[in-house]
Amino acid sequence: MTKLLSETYKKTKYKLRDHGSRSVNDLKVVIDKVEPDRMIDFYGQGFIINDFEDKVARILGKEKAVFFPSGTMAQQIALRMWCDERKIYRVAYHPLCHLEIYEQDGLKKLHNIETVLLGEKDRLFTIDDLKKIGTDISTLLIELPQNCIGGQLPTWDELSEILVYCKENNIKTHLDGARLWEAAPYYKKELNEICREFDSVYVSFYKSIGGVAGAILAGPEEFMNQSKVWKRRYGGDLISLYPYILSADYYMTRRIEKMKIYYEQSMELAKHFNSVNKIYTIPKIPVSNMFNVHFSKNIQNLESMLIAVMKRVDVGITPYFNELEDGYVFDISIGDAYGKIPKGKLDRCFDELNTQINKIM
Amino acid sequence: MTKLLSETYKKTKYKLRDHGSRSVNDLKVVIDKVEPDRMIDFYGQGFIINDFEDKVARILGKEKAVFFPSGTMAQQIALRMWCDERKIYRVAYHPLCHLEIYEQDGLKKLHNIETVLLGEKDRLFTIDDLKKIGTDISTLLIELPQNCIGGQLPTWDELSEILVYCKENNIKTHLDGARLWEAAPYYKKELNEICREFDSVYVSFYKSIGGVAGAILAGPEEFMNQSKVWKRRYGGDLISLYPYILSADYYMTRRIEKMKIYYEQSMELAKHFNSVNKIYTIPKIPVSNMFNVHFSKNIQNLESMLIAVMKRVDVGITPYFNELEDGYVFDISIGDAYGKIPKGKLDRCFDELNTQINKIM
Repeated sequence: MTKLLSETYKKTKYKLRDHGSRSVNDLKVVIDKVEPDRMIDFYGQGFIINDFEDKVARILGKEKAVFFPSGTMAQQIALRMWCDERKIYRVAYHPLCHLEIYEQDGLKKLHNIETVLLGEKDRLFTIDDLKKIGTDISTLLIELPQNCIGGQLPTWDELSEILVYCKENNIKTHLDGARLWEAAPYYKKELNEICREFDSVYVSFYKSIGGVAGAILAGPEEFMNQSKVWKRRYGGDLISLYPYILSADYYMTRRIEKMKIYYEQSMELAKHFNSVNKIYTIPKIPVSNMFNVHFSKNIQNLESMLIAVMKRVDVGITPYFNELEDGYVFDISIGDAYGKIPKGKLDRCFDELNTQINKIM
Repeated sequence: MTKLLSETYKKTKYKLRDHGSRSVNDLKVVIDKVEPDRMIDFYGQGFIINDFEDKVARILGKEKAVFFPSGTMAQQIALRMWCDERKIYRVAYHPLCHLEIYEQDGLKKLHNIETVLLGEKDRLFTIDDLKKIGTDISTLLIELPQNCIGGQLPTWDELSEILVYCKENNIKTHLDGARLWEAAPYYKKELNEICREFDSVYVSFYKSIGGVAGAILAGPEEFMNQSKVWKRRYGGDLISLYPYILSADYYMTRRIEKMKIYYEQSMELAKHFNSVNKIYTIPKIPVSNMFNVHFSKNIQNLESMLIAVMKRVDVGITPYFNELEDGYVFDISIGDAYGKIPKGKLDRCFDELNTQINKIM
């Protein structure tokens, strides 16, 4: 795969994914609406940060919330604190957990915490996977939806069973809710209902929300007060975090209610992909605003084919794909961009994709 | 001390300290000058971050620079890496080093690194202090200027002697240059000359520079590449740091040349303070843009006296002070605000201070 694919994607007028290209404008529209002399946050203090923390705590139904520059920092700290509380320096999570694959082993290098991988890479873990590893762990981390496998979610009953098991066995539960907003429509639950049985929750503001960066960790008051000490230790207690907070608040307010629409659009778009020869999605019917798109291995020249289609119909399909043993894959997550594509263009995009693939076969 | 002091300070039209009140406007003026569709940084990549890193590396005369959200993060990482290289988990610094008093022991809690305090709290450490502790340390951290004692600086010869000693004894040297910009006028040296003999350097962009937040760590290329791994581990490798980078670049460009003026104004202002009965500054003659102001213990009602003077002359002297055994102290660091005070107002401010103090005595 060359740079040409992502460059072609960038140049298309319409896009299947996300909210459009990230740029300085994301921040500019936010800052333009703020009083220039508005008092800013100062080392975690001030209305600008504390009001937002309170707002998100209420949404998630937790006692207290603390704003962090990143989820990486917030989640490592949460796990460390639960380990300290249980005096067991061992946590369990999915093999494709963010902490395991994207954080250069921060949890292990900074805290000497052992990790136990549950189940297999290509599916959700189950209560049976959990039972197999025994109860000598301080914390179970559950990611809802599970990003790397197309945003899959356990059923509400499966999730509840796991949470009850943990409670019975004195295992703390942490919710990796990087994209939690997207899980609510499928569960037909409010966010606070989903969070209720978790001991702590992290949410992100730049993924489905589309803010500049930033995260919230929420949980019991004393736990959250202690998290501020760790935030300082990590160098995350910046003199000012307001560029992230203001944009998080702005985009959360505007997009939290759209998650149901994204979810419906995601099911619609997956149907389009699945109608094309040699393409299928995982999950087949999405349960959030995201899914993975798989192409058969016997599609030659996938890159030039995608480039040709994107150029012809002016719709960006994907800026990248990864090679697997049995094919190719990329992920789609629906944001504001999808709704802007005229219906006719979308149909043409998939007609063209179908035609090209049949031509190649 | 009540809130009234800081509130009165905030309301004054003119101020002795800093660049004026920090507000959203600091960012707004920066963002307004940027093309809205300008491509932004993406996990440490992109012109917006890499060009700025290169620029600062050149200014500091180091092979490579990496932008961090905070100095706390940057410095802990630098010390950890030098400890790893030397396989000695012990570092030495001043008793009022930022890592020792403001970081909730992050260095110890996250890295299990032992610290050795050099000399006394109320003075710079000397080469004799260093020789006393032996050479079983991986790194010596030197803060230039030493913030907590009024921005004091060792003479160039003393500094050189310490750096030579470290080199001879295979001790790495790290420069805590949070306010390094301010040291250049006194030494009459370029920044790269000051940094030359240090193995690594950190500089801040929100202190004397007045940006929103952010820091640079600079050093040898391989060392800096490894620092990016640690930055990821800490959760400091944000998807976007551009709000901090753009403001750092903007204010650095505008203020780096003003450091000499701030230094001269600092000497002038210290003279004003020292002319008042029962007040003295440390150092008596500042060596940077900052100094500490001491009031004798026998000044009763210092707070109400300061409030009265600030209200009467509309010049903000200080928003706070700390109590010591033998008096009271606050720090002054000169920025753009000082130069905006009309000469007559400044004289009146100190006349008034003198009158009030003599009245009290």
